[in-house]
Amino acid sequence: MNKKFFSACLALALGAGASYATSVYAQAKPDVLVKQRQAVMTLQGKYFGPLAAMASGKAPYDAAVAVRNAAFLDALIKMPWDGFQPSTKDEKSRALPAVFDDAAKFKEAQERAQTAMSHLVAAKDEAAFKAAVGEVNKSCGGCHESFRAK
Amino acid sequence: MNKKFFSACLALALGAGASYATSVYAQAKPDVLVKQRQAVMTLQGKYFGPLAAMASGKAPYDAAVAVRNAAFLDALIKMPWDGFQPSTKDEKSRALPAVFDDAAKFKEAQERAQTAMSHLVAAKDEAAFKAAVGEVNKSCGGCHESFRAK
Repeated sequence: MNKKFFSACLALALGAGASYATSVYAQAKPDVLVKQRQAVMTLQGKYFGPLAAMASGKAPYDAAVAVRNAAFLDALIKMPWDGFQPSTKDEKSRALPAVFDDAAKFKEAQERAQTAMSHLVAAKDEAAFKAAVGEVNKSCGGCHESFRAK
Repeated sequence: MNKKFFSACLALALGAGASYATSVYAQAKPDVLVKQRQAVMTLQGKYFGPLAAMASGKAPYDAAVAVRNAAFLDALIKMPWDGFQPSTKDEKSRALPAVFDDAAKFKEAQERAQTAMSHLVAAKDEAAFKAAVGEVNKSCGGCHESFRAK
């Protein structure tokens, strides 16, 4: 592989992720970490919104959309957590100090969200889907209630 | 389910995705679409960066990170495309007019990227991994070259 070409493409491709390129274990800058975790929230909104609309009867149930979005959300729900590094404590964001001061409770909230999402992925009919969307919704809301500024 | 509570949680949870809540098929506003597709790029950077570093020898090969990031990227690579709606043409972003003016070529670039990513997911050893990272990198760079402002 042409290394110079490779590096040039890499720089072109990475944008906000570029600070990762030096080492797999290199710590991204705090503002990058915040940007990345906020990006996850943006996409969770994109894919959960239609499911919530279906579950609450505001939109007709569409099994194909339900399955696709659940799979995307199951990946997304695993992505934000490593962005909540102590280094980001003073960055401008809606994360409350409790994220860093009550790590055990924050970890519990993460696990509840991931479990709820696995139930959404496993839901095989509309009734199970609606129950799982309610559980996911509650886990989102519960975490935001304790760990995100209004 | 308590519908009022549900709606309140939903509004809390969704943020940028809220415009999706009215209907599964409701069209998000152009600025939301741009924000969502940029969020995907941010996360692709987060998860591709370490793989590129490993493939280019800047970081040691770590099979667990390779597998995890490839799975995340395989979901992410499917997410940005529906955000490139004609309604976003005049939004501030780095998308070039070619995205909208040469839809067939843009579609080809999407498919190349998704195929490359599926090879990354299928890579079972370090050699296959390196080759697939090169292919993904080329597909990212190729698309950015034609469809993204410098």
